[in-house]
Amino acid sequence: MRGRIIKESIDLFDKKGFSKTSIQDIVDTIGVTKGTFYYYFKSKQELLRDIHLNYIKELLKEQEVILNDEYISCKEKLNRLIYLIIKNIKVHGKSARVFNREVRHLDQEQVKSVNVYRKEFRLNLQKLIVEGKEKGEFRENLKNDIVIFGILGMVNRSYNWYNPEGEVSEEELVNIYMDLILNGIKLDANRT
Amino acid sequence: MRGRIIKESIDLFDKKGFSKTSIQDIVDTIGVTKGTFYYYFKSKQELLRDIHLNYIKELLKEQEVILNDEYISCKEKLNRLIYLIIKNIKVHGKSARVFNREVRHLDQEQVKSVNVYRKEFRLNLQKLIVEGKEKGEFRENLKNDIVIFGILGMVNRSYNWYNPEGEVSEEELVNIYMDLILNGIKLDANRT
Repeated sequence: MRGRIIKESIDLFDKKGFSKTSIQDIVDTIGVTKGTFYYYFKSKQELLRDIHLNYIKELLKEQEVILNDEYISCKEKLNRLIYLIIKNIKVHGKSARVFNREVRHLDQEQVKSVNVYRKEFRLNLQKLIVEGKEKGEFRENLKNDIVIFGILGMVNRSYNWYNPEGEVSEEELVNIYMDLILNGIKLDANRT
Repeated sequence: MRGRIIKESIDLFDKKGFSKTSIQDIVDTIGVTKGTFYYYFKSKQELLRDIHLNYIKELLKEQEVILNDEYISCKEKLNRLIYLIIKNIKVHGKSARVFNREVRHLDQEQVKSVNVYRKEFRLNLQKLIVEGKEKGEFRENLKNDIVIFGILGMVNRSYNWYNPEGEVSEEELVNIYMDLILNGIKLDANRT
């Protein structure tokens, strides 16, 4: 039931917005009583927080598996991590959109509890840049934090424009991003 | 007065959200009557649309000046265009945030009227990539549209995390982005 409430409320928040969706709307859609809702969540705010906690914790688990793989290069890890985000558009696009738009309805403590995990995801990526420098895969003179903000901005922004059912497949999109991130756009006669 | 209404409403929408801000709130803050509001705007939605139209039209004008400069390279044009966006964070950050968050409150026609200009800005950037390829500044095998979505995602996302008053100056941030965009992160022994 908890999963069902989360799923239906993401749809409602996406369509009508968080403010205009009441707990009554949510329970009506599922056909249960408010009591059922309050059994699982203290408030609509807590539900919104949990929607994103679910999502980001799942991503972190998958990120960990990729980062701990000893048999692949840092470039390959970066590739797989970007693919992880892109393939999530299909599954979790709505949830991410809802969260980014409605985060202001959460109180400070709730935002903090989510941001702990978001920051962890970002810092793990930063560590990958450090590791890639040590292994001679990435250039030394990169500012780890800003490079990762840039890459995440580029990739996350796909949630707004990329249509996984369109002309460009998820794999192609990841390849294009990786080419851009690794090689840049400059034509350089000295480059292989 | 029109400018004053726009300015104060951006602040209110940013703080309280669009839904929870009434026209009464807006006119109370300025100390005028609702009649004054309706003299300039048909509705709160129209005000929201105009907030963004103002912003994007201003950007387009400045973009045009940069793109039409015959004395600078495509790389330099890209540099100046990114700087244009970054320096706008200080001035228009709130306005852009409000728009991105509240755009769903506009009706289709209103969204369309704004998106015409947003698309123009993006397509102008795409043309710059094409021009840069022709002039041998950028690599041939780039997908113009996705590269520009990527660059815009990266740069626009700075609105969410970048603090112009912090450690990294706007000029430094632009240089870091340009280095990333032009050269990528890969260490390449064959590169100059």
